[in-house]
Amino acid sequence: MNSQFHHIGVVTRPNTPHIRQTLHELVDFLYAQDIQIYLDADAVAENLVDEHSLQQCHVISKDEMGRQCDLVVVLGGDGTLLSVARKLAPYRVPMIGVHQGHLGFLTQVPRESMVADFAGMLTGKYLPEERILLETVVQRDGAEIKRALALNDVVLSRGGMGQMIEFEVFINGEFVYTQRSDGLIVSTPTGSTAYALAAGGPILQSTLRAFSLVPICPQSMTNRPIAVSDTSEIDILVTKGGDARAHFDGQSYVDIHSMDRIQIRRYRNTLRVLHPTDYQYYKTLRQKLHWGEQLV
Amino acid sequence: MNSQFHHIGVVTRPNTPHIRQTLHELVDFLYAQDIQIYLDADAVAENLVDEHSLQQCHVISKDEMGRQCDLVVVLGGDGTLLSVARKLAPYRVPMIGVHQGHLGFLTQVPRESMVADFAGMLTGKYLPEERILLETVVQRDGAEIKRALALNDVVLSRGGMGQMIEFEVFINGEFVYTQRSDGLIVSTPTGSTAYALAAGGPILQSTLRAFSLVPICPQSMTNRPIAVSDTSEIDILVTKGGDARAHFDGQSYVDIHSMDRIQIRRYRNTLRVLHPTDYQYYKTLRQKLHWGEQLV
Amino acid sequence: MNSQFHHIGVVTRPNTPHIRQTLHELVDFLYAQDIQIYLDADAVAENLVDEHSLQQCHVISKDEMGRQCDLVVVLGGDGTLLSVARKLAPYRVPMIGVHQGHLGFLTQVPRESMVADFAGMLTGKYLPEERILLETVVQRDGAEIKRALALNDVVLSRGGMGQMIEFEVFINGEFVYTQRSDGLIVSTPTGSTAYALAAGGPILQSTLRAFSLVPICPQSMTNRPIAVSDTSEIDILVTKGGDARAHFDGQSYVDIHSMDRIQIRRYRNTLRVLHPTDYQYYKTLRQKLHWGEQLV
Amino acid sequence: MNSQFHHIGVVTRPNTPHIRQTLHELVDFLYAQDIQIYLDADAVAENLVDEHSLQQCHVISKDEMGRQCDLVVVLGGDGTLLSVARKLAPYRVPMIGVHQGHLGFLTQVPRESMVADFAGMLTGKYLPEERILLETVVQRDGAEIKRALALNDVVLSRGGMGQMIEFEVFINGEFVYTQRSDGLIVSTPTGSTAYALAAGGPILQSTLRAFSLVPICPQSMTNRPIAVSDTSEIDILVTKGGDARAHFDGQSYVDIHSMDRIQIRRYRNTLRVLHPTDYQYYKTLRQKLHWGEQLV
Repeated sequence: MNSQFHHIGVVTRPNTPHIRQTLHELVDFLYAQDIQIYLDADAVAENLVDEHSLQQCHVISKDEMGRQCDLVVVLGGDGTLLSVARKLAPYRVPMIGVHQGHLGFLTQVPRESMVADFAGMLTGKYLPEERILLETVVQRDGAEIKRALALNDVVLSRGGMGQMIEFEVFINGEFVYTQRSDGLIVSTPTGSTAYALAAGGPILQSTLRAFSLVPICPQSMTNRPIAVSDTSEIDILVTKGGDARAHFDGQSYVDIHSMDRIQIRRYRNTLRVLHPTDYQYYKTLRQKLHWGEQLV
Repeated sequence: MNSQFHHIGVVTRPNTPHIRQTLHELVDFLYAQDIQIYLDADAVAENLVDEHSLQQCHVISKDEMGRQCDLVVVLGGDGTLLSVARKLAPYRVPMIGVHQGHLGFLTQVPRESMVADFAGMLTGKYLPEERILLETVVQRDGAEIKRALALNDVVLSRGGMGQMIEFEVFINGEFVYTQRSDGLIVSTPTGSTAYALAAGGPILQSTLRAFSLVPICPQSMTNRPIAVSDTSEIDILVTKGGDARAHFDGQSYVDIHSMDRIQIRRYRNTLRVLHPTDYQYYKTLRQKLHWGEQLV
Repeated sequence: MNSQFHHIGVVTRPNTPHIRQTLHELVDFLYAQDIQIYLDADAVAENLVDEHSLQQCHVISKDEMGRQCDLVVVLGGDGTLLSVARKLAPYRVPMIGVHQGHLGFLTQVPRESMVADFAGMLTGKYLPEERILLETVVQRDGAEIKRALALNDVVLSRGGMGQMIEFEVFINGEFVYTQRSDGLIVSTPTGSTAYALAAGGPILQSTLRAFSLVPICPQSMTNRPIAVSDTSEIDILVTKGGDARAHFDGQSYVDIHSMDRIQIRRYRNTLRVLHPTDYQYYKTLRQKLHWGEQLV
Repeated sequence: MNSQFHHIGVVTRPNTPHIRQTLHELVDFLYAQDIQIYLDADAVAENLVDEHSLQQCHVISKDEMGRQCDLVVVLGGDGTLLSVARKLAPYRVPMIGVHQGHLGFLTQVPRESMVADFAGMLTGKYLPEERILLETVVQRDGAEIKRALALNDVVLSRGGMGQMIEFEVFINGEFVYTQRSDGLIVSTPTGSTAYALAAGGPILQSTLRAFSLVPICPQSMTNRPIAVSDTSEIDILVTKGGDARAHFDGQSYVDIHSMDRIQIRRYRNTLRVLHPTDYQYYKTLRQKLHWGEQLV
């Protein structure tokens, strides 16, 4: 096989013992193709890698993986891929997602056909899809207190006190509105089928260069979801923060105080996900949302 | 004047110094009618009552008020009335709400016309409205850990971790659904124009004998608001609680653990609110929601 | 068998040739119990009844059926039952619905177990459910131009011109709002899982004594669904009718002109539907809406 | 004054006698600047133009206007501008909208300050905004039966029968879903604050290169609004048309039969609207939707 990729990293979902077998299969296959294999140190620490596989691989951190690999394979679901994507985004490494039973938007390769699919994909038979990410800077008293990436969404959200929060939103420096609500979701197209959808937001086609701003239980019924160009600079000034937090992909967060400023921009790099050649975005959507199949 | 009420309690919104003048006016008016006046000890502690008024009044706790008064007047907004109503509900004392500038659903008497309105209302010229309350019992390992009343709503809600919670809902012992969401609002008609409305719930006419169950950002789009008879026994079994809480009128709460059971029933007493005779429920709704006025 | 019912009418869904077999089975069974069987003349005209069955039955109109039967069985789906229920409502005859493959809210008996289920149900082993109906009177220039019943909903709706219509709504004589929209649905609990749900309305528990008013694409976002007591008198004054119509259960309609008045009230009789003893309202809802099943 | 524009067309809202005065003022002003003025023949036929103005103008059809003018001014509201824009779109003439009292999204110049605003705008002090249009082709039995432009939206919609219609949607040749509903709105950003918003669609920022597909009362609750790139080719195959129609900006329509194909694309030209230099998109939105003003 004439692989386009020669240094392939492999990351696995944590706490998933039954992934061991899939990992073993993948390593065997890649090793047979003379590909350099890089295993995530966390998986090794978790004892997900058997002795035999270990001898065929390098064990490195995820950051090292970004520097040394020309492809990263994620064994897990969309959640695992989200967390790896945020870490690897600075390195612009393409990724392939292998799901463990439940088809994902980003993890399209089924474990069962993984080796067969990879045989084609590594030689260039794949459909690439570029997904935008968000970069967020939180400022307090003029100083940056947090910088974070998100592939799904940045969620400004009230905490457990149950009190609505208040904030002002600006787009490209232009004042948009003062809002009183449980919070605001700024979502990429990737995130538009996740929490933003539950909050009443629109689906953004995966490759649309846009973000959505989706209010969470806004007090005013006219505060409806807005889709804006992904070149938009979104600034949120939190005027009544209570116990609010800003969440990144629902996987990390920072506490927000009143008068904090949250700046959200498209990240300079996109994530390049490689899908099998029979990938159809709308087919995935249809399956996930139980939409009506074609009759005619 | 031939007042129907002879022992009138007066409660004021805390931390509202400018309410002093309204209170003074009210006390003067009631005193002149030979009515026994009972002041909330909290207002006195807060120094909202001037020396002159104090001499015309008894100072007691809210619980005492429930036992001794045949009417309680609330000076404040709907929020203040909610908190007093929960305290006084066991005593079945009717209430009149005086708003401080912003018309409320429950506080219909404007401060400006308070004395004139009261002259009529105390002699029986009022429209009474019965509002149902909810009684909630939280059980952990078979033992009751919390009992609370609510006039607006009981809100089971995730906390600051930002993770959806999971729970099962039963109505009259019949299983309804398993839900994954940010939480569930069980709302009275009174609460249906508050948080439940922001979460997408229907408006329940003020005197409808019904509750609504309104999911907050449910993962499944088919988990839609349901209205059920107020004789319904609603039970929630929290299966994945995370850092969830149950909130009562957004004014008090209890931490919820996984496997806690939340039992919600109509409280045995209703709240009787007295409104001026020109009260129109839909007029208030129309003003609050900026609905279209009559053209023809 | 000791049947509670001695005169049973049978109505079938039109244009459904494969219903012939079910009908034959039912007639045979009832005949063997010495029950008088009344067949809908329309089914006979449609040639859905075989010669053998015909000899065991009386053939009459649906109106006659109302007068002579103490039970009416509907073979078909909810749509068929709706249309029969409107016709028979004045006679207060209970009904049983037999579905032809797709479980219905009102047609709970599967064709497959029909005979076995009926063996129990006719002797009193059933769960009765009372469903409210709506009676509508349309007035033009002070004269009644249409009177109609509905079990699901009365829908005031724009026609094919695509222009929004305008109307004023009154409840118990009290003005509610002026609305500009594609129309308004007044729905019973029965109809709340049909068109009203598609338009964003709440689910009303089947036995709740309430109607919902659900705007269709209202221009103002604050025109939200309202649930009102079923004793409410709902009046609609159409101020800009365009090519509007009022539809009854989506099965009949009347053209509406500007300045027509539409009066909607609960009909004096309820519909009594008999279900098998394992009937669970929420189970049906759960199946229809694909709600989450019980895990614990 | 050194006007950038030398041949200016003027179109007025039909049936609006009080527009005569504004028109007179505008003509006087333009004439004094030595600009060639072209009046819409319809306005003249309607007698909206006084004798004095007529002598200062050329009277031509709207199509001629497209060919001869380098700017067209619309006196009226957004509705008038929509209808003119569809006619002039092939000619790529920029437009200025003068509203008659109610601020419009496209008609930003108030009648009162019209002359003062124009003094600046004609010399280049304006903010241009490009708005995309939709071009629709309806095909029946392989032949094109209708071709139409829309600036707001193309609405496939059931007619007065009140029966839902059924259709299949394809985007870029990829099957998306089969839908059963009252219809589907394909909306530009311009239309996203009109009918699409009433149907539950998202607001699309005015200059976003996207369309939204917004279902009208879909039977399936998972048929949610989707935003797609404006390069998308949207095809609708109507499988159960009933008495459906396709509407263009709600101002013209064509009857749709079962098995008709509706092809919707971005039109090759955009509409260039010129706004005063203090134009702020979000300010207009905020005023129209009564969003909260800035507090801090």
